[in-house]
Amino acid sequence: MVSGRSIESGSGPIRYGMVGGGQGAFIGAVHRIAARIDGEFELVAGAFSSEPARAKASGRELGIADDRNYGTFAEMAKAEAKRPDGIEAVAIVTPNHMHYPAAKAFLEAGIHVICDKPLTSTLADAKKLAAVAKKSGCVFVLTHNYTGYPMIRQAREMVAKGQLGAIRLVQAEYPQDWLTEAAEKAGSKQAEWRVDPKRSGAGGSTGDIGTHAYNLARFVSGLELDSLAADLSAFGAGRVLDDNANIMLRFKEANGVAARGMIWASQVAPGNENGLKLRIYGTKGGLEWVQADPNYLWYTPFGQPKQLLTRGGAGSMPVAARVTRVPPGHPEGYLEGFANIYTEAARAIRAARKKGGKPPKDVVYPTIDDGVEGVAFVEACVKSSKKNAAWTKL
Amino acid sequence: MVSGRSIESGSGPIRYGMVGGGQGAFIGAVHRIAARIDGEFELVAGAFSSEPARAKASGRELGIADDRNYGTFAEMAKAEAKRPDGIEAVAIVTPNHMHYPAAKAFLEAGIHVICDKPLTSTLADAKKLAAVAKKSGCVFVLTHNYTGYPMIRQAREMVAKGQLGAIRLVQAEYPQDWLTEAAEKAGSKQAEWRVDPKRSGAGGSTGDIGTHAYNLARFVSGLELDSLAADLSAFGAGRVLDDNANIMLRFKEANGVAARGMIWASQVAPGNENGLKLRIYGTKGGLEWVQADPNYLWYTPFGQPKQLLTRGGAGSMPVAARVTRVPPGHPEGYLEGFANIYTEAARAIRAARKKGGKPPKDVVYPTIDDGVEGVAFVEACVKSSKKNAAWTKL
Amino acid sequence: MVSGRSIESGSGPIRYGMVGGGQGAFIGAVHRIAARIDGEFELVAGAFSSEPARAKASGRELGIADDRNYGTFAEMAKAEAKRPDGIEAVAIVTPNHMHYPAAKAFLEAGIHVICDKPLTSTLADAKKLAAVAKKSGCVFVLTHNYTGYPMIRQAREMVAKGQLGAIRLVQAEYPQDWLTEAAEKAGSKQAEWRVDPKRSGAGGSTGDIGTHAYNLARFVSGLELDSLAADLSAFGAGRVLDDNANIMLRFKEANGVAARGMIWASQVAPGNENGLKLRIYGTKGGLEWVQADPNYLWYTPFGQPKQLLTRGGAGSMPVAARVTRVPPGHPEGYLEGFANIYTEAARAIRAARKKGGKPPKDVVYPTIDDGVEGVAFVEACVKSSKKNAAWTKL
Amino acid sequence: MVSGRSIESGSGPIRYGMVGGGQGAFIGAVHRIAARIDGEFELVAGAFSSEPARAKASGRELGIADDRNYGTFAEMAKAEAKRPDGIEAVAIVTPNHMHYPAAKAFLEAGIHVICDKPLTSTLADAKKLAAVAKKSGCVFVLTHNYTGYPMIRQAREMVAKGQLGAIRLVQAEYPQDWLTEAAEKAGSKQAEWRVDPKRSGAGGSTGDIGTHAYNLARFVSGLELDSLAADLSAFGAGRVLDDNANIMLRFKEANGVAARGMIWASQVAPGNENGLKLRIYGTKGGLEWVQADPNYLWYTPFGQPKQLLTRGGAGSMPVAARVTRVPPGHPEGYLEGFANIYTEAARAIRAARKKGGKPPKDVVYPTIDDGVEGVAFVEACVKSSKKNAAWTKL
Repeated sequence: MVSGRSIESGSGPIRYGMVGGGQGAFIGAVHRIAARIDGEFELVAGAFSSEPARAKASGRELGIADDRNYGTFAEMAKAEAKRPDGIEAVAIVTPNHMHYPAAKAFLEAGIHVICDKPLTSTLADAKKLAAVAKKSGCVFVLTHNYTGYPMIRQAREMVAKGQLGAIRLVQAEYPQDWLTEAAEKAGSKQAEWRVDPKRSGAGGSTGDIGTHAYNLARFVSGLELDSLAADLSAFGAGRVLDDNANIMLRFKEANGVAARGMIWASQVAPGNENGLKLRIYGTKGGLEWVQADPNYLWYTPFGQPKQLLTRGGAGSMPVAARVTRVPPGHPEGYLEGFANIYTEAARAIRAARKKGGKPPKDVVYPTIDDGVEGVAFVEACVKSSKKNAAWTKL
Repeated sequence: MVSGRSIESGSGPIRYGMVGGGQGAFIGAVHRIAARIDGEFELVAGAFSSEPARAKASGRELGIADDRNYGTFAEMAKAEAKRPDGIEAVAIVTPNHMHYPAAKAFLEAGIHVICDKPLTSTLADAKKLAAVAKKSGCVFVLTHNYTGYPMIRQAREMVAKGQLGAIRLVQAEYPQDWLTEAAEKAGSKQAEWRVDPKRSGAGGSTGDIGTHAYNLARFVSGLELDSLAADLSAFGAGRVLDDNANIMLRFKEANGVAARGMIWASQVAPGNENGLKLRIYGTKGGLEWVQADPNYLWYTPFGQPKQLLTRGGAGSMPVAARVTRVPPGHPEGYLEGFANIYTEAARAIRAARKKGGKPPKDVVYPTIDDGVEGVAFVEACVKSSKKNAAWTKL
Repeated sequence: MVSGRSIESGSGPIRYGMVGGGQGAFIGAVHRIAARIDGEFELVAGAFSSEPARAKASGRELGIADDRNYGTFAEMAKAEAKRPDGIEAVAIVTPNHMHYPAAKAFLEAGIHVICDKPLTSTLADAKKLAAVAKKSGCVFVLTHNYTGYPMIRQAREMVAKGQLGAIRLVQAEYPQDWLTEAAEKAGSKQAEWRVDPKRSGAGGSTGDIGTHAYNLARFVSGLELDSLAADLSAFGAGRVLDDNANIMLRFKEANGVAARGMIWASQVAPGNENGLKLRIYGTKGGLEWVQADPNYLWYTPFGQPKQLLTRGGAGSMPVAARVTRVPPGHPEGYLEGFANIYTEAARAIRAARKKGGKPPKDVVYPTIDDGVEGVAFVEACVKSSKKNAAWTKL
Repeated sequence: MVSGRSIESGSGPIRYGMVGGGQGAFIGAVHRIAARIDGEFELVAGAFSSEPARAKASGRELGIADDRNYGTFAEMAKAEAKRPDGIEAVAIVTPNHMHYPAAKAFLEAGIHVICDKPLTSTLADAKKLAAVAKKSGCVFVLTHNYTGYPMIRQAREMVAKGQLGAIRLVQAEYPQDWLTEAAEKAGSKQAEWRVDPKRSGAGGSTGDIGTHAYNLARFVSGLELDSLAADLSAFGAGRVLDDNANIMLRFKEANGVAARGMIWASQVAPGNENGLKLRIYGTKGGLEWVQADPNYLWYTPFGQPKQLLTRGGAGSMPVAARVTRVPPGHPEGYLEGFANIYTEAARAIRAARKKGGKPPKDVVYPTIDDGVEGVAFVEACVKSSKKNAAWTKL
């Protein structure tokens, strides 16, 4: 059994800044929460929007000091590099086309980069950026976040240790449904830039989610792709980028077998929210994993019953345990449920700063009366049981 | 659709301290993570163990300043109450029997309390503490954390709005298997105090997990219990506290119906990790929820097909949305997977502080080469598709 | 792997008759199909209703010869016992209160009895009938049909072989929702007699489905019940029989442990069709089985990963294989889907008896054109693959 | 609600014969059971093997009269066509390469044909046979049995009625694992002919299971295929036929949209028994169905919660109800479980023909004592409940 572990950085958090992720953006908030969970990072600077006014307003909301709340990333890279207390790392969470110039600026300023995927909008930019990164000596982390799931780490280790034998088949899929109708014409900012080749690059569903499926397939299988045959479609009226991708894969030989595979990525499959799924089959066994239920990994050693491996449960490996915070059976959302109680508490405490202040009515948390009720329940259980399960009032 | 939201406290985090939760404890780390997720709290003081030496060592590891790293909670309550920058709130995460004295000390010092469940070991203590809390005017939050799940909030709202009609049946269960064998004799610290009536109080499985099931049943149904009949067992050799509880419930009348129910709590049911499950049935419909997959809520309006409601998906309500951080289809563990990438990045960045420094070999994160590979994948897809799905090398 | 097996009686089918199960009855048709599946029985006589006119009409529809199509069961027992080609067995599928007199009549006539459950409406009748049966020397089979599922046979064998250790817990439940509203006042014949104590006996949900749950618990666990505590409710307006039953169980000691358990039976739980579920936990492992997905059996040896055992799959035992007809992965409904094709074929063939005759428009089956299409598909696949996956027209 | 229905042919069963399906064959027994379930067919003749001696032995076991137990299908077609009581229909269940000559012989003799899939080994044969069938005026039924599932009928109707809008995507898959290792060298007769191009034709996994996936995709979607791109592999050492097929599909335009799709068929994917799955997505909604759980159909109207439609449950349509035999919640295997009880009864009854005879020890069925126990249970429940849930002995 795993006992919940995390770093909670004794040596002090790492100072970091953010490019993009201002008001109305989704992924910026996700990065900031991810940076806080283990107490490893402290957000101290930012250029939160390509519009300077919006950038500043966003920074103020996030409690950034005025002198580190920048209008542009270029200015930020320059200024932070000079400060003795400057940021050690930057998180880049802009639309795809800005990844290249922003990352380049910070790498050249000697600042480590954590960058959203896909890396850039074009392969040419990607290669140039890789060269800059290597020359800089900086750490460069791409947030293909699905590789962070404990059971994905475990799956990778099982493949690497040969538990599946030589890999023959890699089936990955990532269906969604949010572009089934024309969300880009209905006011969704995210839909607007996702279907726009200027901001997204050449790939629509391929760039947004196909890359996740492909990255995960490579990460777990350890295989290298030889070639692919892709049939991309744009079903939405007026769309130029693909909103559905059917792809066949041929991998390079490994352990004497050249594996085959398929990727299906779609944004027009009603009933699928984020249906990322990976299945890998070898000469000795198979693995299946579904992102919506990430704590489970199905493992079938050929000829034996299928096993349900759980995060931290029987059969889990050290590579999974080292990125696990709560015991098996508690889904990872457990911590977020827990955090909700804390955040409701914060609301109540802030309200209580004013004498007699009450939080808004929708703030809900278990009170001391619930506690009394709970203890009364235990005592009634014990009393009833001692009297041969007689009915007992609370 | 929900766009990930959290507070990220603009007005500055709330200063808090912790009692218990030192080295080797599980739930303390969970509380600290929960406090960090939304950026609402800052840990500045603690009495992390009942053993002063261990308390201090734990505090140092957590980066607590020496003058706020206390040997006892009593000392801490007194000193913090006097400081102008003293803690506004305290989290109490000790074994059950210490909840009462610790909570009392902080409440009397005018400090808000966030306390682990069950409230106290005896009903008498619970009632006394409730009186102290009321008199103090402080906020008191009991961490019945399962009430923080968005779909539990939604379930409660659906019942309250009458979507299930008058409630007839409330079936709750919480099976586990960790005490199937004598873990308390095999070195598990948690098993040791859980089976010890001095530290746990009168209830074993009832106090530890039965209270969770009961609290959740009340929270969602809105019903009050009239009486119960309990059949408690201690299957483990030498145990005095129950490790299995079969309980029948009779609720007080509401909307013209006096509901019935059952609770099953067990620590000796092999194959169950944390199998908390709640089912509620009324004259018009039924709801089912399982903690291991907390993003789903099954809803059947009588006579219509069963619906799978998802956190943030179609049919989700504002009460769920306000405690939701990521869009539907991303399980809540998504943030933890994301955090793992950030924390791996932190390890790499810390290592890079030394010229040429590398993180330990088990640190894994997506690199810029993965990014180049991803962009190459997209370009190959587009190229292949333009050539009628011809095989295309990466 | 199992290859589909059944008897297909070489020595000729057993002649049997039926009491009850005429027009409009549900369970009679089920018995007749069950009797046909393996070719072991041939229906040659009947008294299909307590109303003689309806009995005769039903028999004619079923193709029963006039001289064996009886108005009453008494007449039938007498006449069949005298015939040299008389029935060897009778299936009794009447409402509960008629089981006793009917079964008695046939047993006394030396005819084997297959009887629907529950055995009788009162315990006194049940005991008398048992005495009659024993004296008669006839075979008496009660159709607790759930004991016929292969994975239930396997579960029983695993318990008997000690794979779960000493049994501690037996949790059974059988929720339904069909009496949530007053179906008995809305024209449902079955609801009418189920809620009528004259025809059903003293138990409502207990008699109808609680007995199934209890029988299955005993069958699989091999335990004998010592005592129970039951809290029965009649939620439906005007009902006298229970439509919900919460029951706690204490079993007699076996292997040094006196197991505990619970049964929940309900007819008022919206969203449950036939939610029969059995969970058994012992000192060494646990088993879980759900009737709606009967091909699966979840098995957890304590401390090891949970295994999904499938009917006929890896780990399945001879006791399951001997009652299995199709290989693993084909649900048992596979045969019924197959039968639908045959029955559609029969409709087409009967229509074709008239020159140019066509079956009704709703008759659907795969035609020879579908067959041509299928072969064209295979050839196109092979052709495309040989040309490096070039697009190929059918 | 559906009340279990089937034909139980009043006008007498249809006489039919069988070609193939003798000792050791799997699919022959499946056809015979399917023919018996609704009482629509009676097996009276056969040529059960291509080896005359084995054919005769098999026929004797099945109780076929000597003069209708043929050595070859040619002889059978000729003789049966002449008899006044000759067969009206024949079931052809041989390896693929024999379908053509056998079907031709019977069609030319004016006998209706029910033929296993795929239709023939070559497209040329298939087309010739189609011509013969048309000329003959006989009914020709191909047993693409999956089209017989009630929820597949319902899915097709929902698509036809436009509930999904215009279809954009059709994803079908049929993974198995039984050829992961070299079963064809380990004595599996079925594996031997499946990997032999002489007996199976040009397609391996494509012919065996790919055709099922393709047929089902067409049946439900109502779409016609325009072209495909197939990447077939033979992973097993020495295999010439494909054991894995990755296929991309382009359909002809319908309702203004030219749908795309994929088929994955595999016999080398460990952990998959018969993983047939179909997903169809249109402009207005999506459907998902899995053969292993055939009673369920997932339906998502775009923008609304996902619904779980069940066979015979709320929302089920007449096209499903007309091929349904048992009520919702009872899986279709319910009838087979029931049949097991009847067949065990038959074993007991046959044994009882000898005075004091007992069936073999492994015959298990619920006895009258179980019945007494069940009634005692009900009475104990009622008694306990009347005494406020007091513990009551059985």
